[in-house]
Amino acid sequence: MLKISSYNPEGGKYLEDVILKYNERIDDLQCKGLRIIQNLTKFRFGIDAVLLASFSQIRKGDFVIDLGTGTGIIPILLAGKTEAEKIVGLEIQREMAEMAQRSIRLNNLKERISIVEGDLKKVKDIFGTGEFDVVTCNPPYMNYGGGLLNPNDSKAISRHEIACTLNDVIISASKLLKDKGRFNMVHRPERLIDIIHFMRENKLEPKRLQMICPKFNSSPNLLLIEGVKNGRPMLKVLPTVYVYSENGEYTEQIDEMYGRR
Amino acid sequence: MLKISSYNPEGGKYLEDVILKYNERIDDLQCKGLRIIQNLTKFRFGIDAVLLASFSQIRKGDFVIDLGTGTGIIPILLAGKTEAEKIVGLEIQREMAEMAQRSIRLNNLKERISIVEGDLKKVKDIFGTGEFDVVTCNPPYMNYGGGLLNPNDSKAISRHEIACTLNDVIISASKLLKDKGRFNMVHRPERLIDIIHFMRENKLEPKRLQMICPKFNSSPNLLLIEGVKNGRPMLKVLPTVYVYSENGEYTEQIDEMYGRR
Repeated sequence: MLKISSYNPEGGKYLEDVILKYNERIDDLQCKGLRIIQNLTKFRFGIDAVLLASFSQIRKGDFVIDLGTGTGIIPILLAGKTEAEKIVGLEIQREMAEMAQRSIRLNNLKERISIVEGDLKKVKDIFGTGEFDVVTCNPPYMNYGGGLLNPNDSKAISRHEIACTLNDVIISASKLLKDKGRFNMVHRPERLIDIIHFMRENKLEPKRLQMICPKFNSSPNLLLIEGVKNGRPMLKVLPTVYVYSENGEYTEQIDEMYGRR
Repeated sequence: MLKISSYNPEGGKYLEDVILKYNERIDDLQCKGLRIIQNLTKFRFGIDAVLLASFSQIRKGDFVIDLGTGTGIIPILLAGKTEAEKIVGLEIQREMAEMAQRSIRLNNLKERISIVEGDLKKVKDIFGTGEFDVVTCNPPYMNYGGGLLNPNDSKAISRHEIACTLNDVIISASKLLKDKGRFNMVHRPERLIDIIHFMRENKLEPKRLQMICPKFNSSPNLLLIEGVKNGRPMLKVLPTVYVYSENGEYTEQIDEMYGRR
């Protein structure tokens, strides 16, 4: 079995009390009392993280890894919603990893969640291969053309393919997963063809697909996809999800995902 | 330019008056007075043909070919709805091709539509390569496992991959299309991954995708996809279409496609 001890990016010992840094605040996740630290000047989680956590099917005892975990939102939601045994959050940015680590302590989830600072392109060196039941990822959506962006900018790294590309994510997920392990990702519909192409190329057969539309009769702006390592071809397309109803409020579908009902 | 003369599967001359055979009837297409001959004991067109004709973007002067045209429904609808210059319907079953030919004459569309009896696996021999602006296809959806079906059964050939597979259709479409020509197909969502895989393998880059659901909050049971020969990767997913509203009637989306509004 895989064994991962908590990681301290500073090399020293964590204090038991959680310290908030400048520009940080604690947000209530409205799910089993869970909370998260976010920095107002950095990338904060959006509905895509909530959708991905809701879409991912996690079984009791599963070993899960979230690639590019950022604030740690997906591991924290999965810890609250599922019976996963162990959830690893891998994050390349030291400051984000350190902040996520404090959120884990804030929620008393150190036994179940480990935040690891590292590059998802090097997962084989860090975790070996075939050790996880589930990989989740809410990757940067945007192509990186270079030039216009500051590659040291934290928000840019979260949004653009600077530190990793779509194909990097899929290659890493395939390495990390056991046979029949499940890869769950949220991404943009315009990339669906590349997603499917890369997934199949890396033996992650797409099995579930769901489109997310801002409102009825609009085109989807997000998609959720699950691939099974070495799975047999047969896709299930789930009902389209609409985020806002005509009166501008969240639909029942979204309310259910946020666990408000 | 491509030149195709009308094909007569019987080798003789057609009579000017259209003869209905046993078990055949004439249906009104409720679109510009168009009508179609269908045989009550054979495969008759369904909503998928109407959806495909509506989804396909045809420009003035286009040369179009419909693979596995059956009754000729798609060429007839496209002749009514678009300014395509010439539409070829290719059909492997002689009896269907002959019936489709009579429908073309019934509608006085001999100048614009040619029905050709032939195997879509041999399109290169029949039509050469790169001659068409648009290929449409409403192929058999079901895998053919052999055994249970009578491979001489007309309905079975229309529904099951007996005479051609999904990959055969895509390979033929790619051969027939000019550079930047458009392939339009209706199929089942569970085959989406294979469709995308085969399309990209044959240089038909998927550009538009639309899911069709029987009703709200249900999974789609049909999809429409357009691929562009040698197109650049960038998919547009269109709003989901629902066929039936809560009261069991067609939705406005479908009524518009049937041209009733």
